[in-house]
Amino acid sequence: MPPPPTAAQVLQPSDERRRQILAAARICFARAGFHGASMGQICAEAQMSPGALYRYFPSKDAIIEAIAEEERAGAVACMEHLRGPGSIADRLVATAMEYLASARDPESGGLMVEICSESLRNTTVGARFCELEEMVRATMRTAIAEARAHGEVPADLDLDVALTMIFAFGDGLMMRLQFERDVALEAIEPHLLRVVRALLRMDEA
Amino acid sequence: MPPPPTAAQVLQPSDERRRQILAAARICFARAGFHGASMGQICAEAQMSPGALYRYFPSKDAIIEAIAEEERAGAVACMEHLRGPGSIADRLVATAMEYLASARDPESGGLMVEICSESLRNTTVGARFCELEEMVRATMRTAIAEARAHGEVPADLDLDVALTMIFAFGDGLMMRLQFERDVALEAIEPHLLRVVRALLRMDEA
Repeated sequence: MPPPPTAAQVLQPSDERRRQILAAARICFARAGFHGASMGQICAEAQMSPGALYRYFPSKDAIIEAIAEEERAGAVACMEHLRGPGSIADRLVATAMEYLASARDPESGGLMVEICSESLRNTTVGARFCELEEMVRATMRTAIAEARAHGEVPADLDLDVALTMIFAFGDGLMMRLQFERDVALEAIEPHLLRVVRALLRMDEA
Repeated sequence: MPPPPTAAQVLQPSDERRRQILAAARICFARAGFHGASMGQICAEAQMSPGALYRYFPSKDAIIEAIAEEERAGAVACMEHLRGPGSIADRLVATAMEYLASARDPESGGLMVEICSESLRNTTVGARFCELEEMVRATMRTAIAEARAHGEVPADLDLDVALTMIFAFGDGLMMRLQFERDVALEAIEPHLLRVVRALLRMDEA
């Protein structure tokens, strides 16, 4: 017979319960902002009692932390493409395409805009997501530096300016694809590849 | 002797007064959002009494409308570069550089993020700024279509996809340059030109 569950085990939400709460929270945060959305709204959206929700997540901060963790895991998954086949531009575009596809959901896309807004205001939430971006940027920087070492991009390429431009393009596309729902992701892929190649000055290498 | 001022003339703020109120409102909106900022906060920021402020702008909506009008005038001024010398890419980049320079002010940059956020949420404020963007987009579309007619860009260039990409890049740069204060605008200009040329497929024309 298995031992009875410990308190910690009892309080751990099942994967399904956790997914349900975080999905509801994303909707509420996207709609009303991290500050504007209340735990009460999240309960209503998740169709749970406050008692049940607080048992899983003791505060809004705990929910935000869990969403940041989901985003981190998503970013790591996207960056698997950096180890795939093809040129450095192909691999960066594959990474970006997966990110854009996951961000195109109207709810989570709205949340991305909230995250940008928090980052600009330099809030605690903003800082949490800036850390995540630093991780993504460092991984991409390593991949491009390796490509530079192999002569795939020019030796004098300024990695930091190139990365700033690539991230700017990623932010902008992520946001704009929320508005322009009729633009197919596949339609932008060749343009994205042209832009990344231009920013990495691959025709000069 | 001039006739006495009419009521309408008395209520019209002087240019300096107007500038002062709108600058204060931009700071408050950037800090707390269009919904979050109150007329009281705008008064405090402008160092004016509510009575004085309400005499000039009867509502927050009237202030937002005046800011939208300032943005429209700014956009028209930037687009003067589309009639300047150089290739279509040079002219688009000159337009973008003036926009980016004006948006780099920390306060108005923050406001731009609020505007994006409103547009995503499809609010009345968002719709007002979408109209402005439609105007800018139509003007740029005409300029690129003329360049296409002259053979400067390929005949099969999809103007709408190219414009979506250019606007995405503009949005993203505008936002990112708020965070990355140490990146000089002049440093990004050559990259911007490479990207616009790539998006317009000018090397194929």
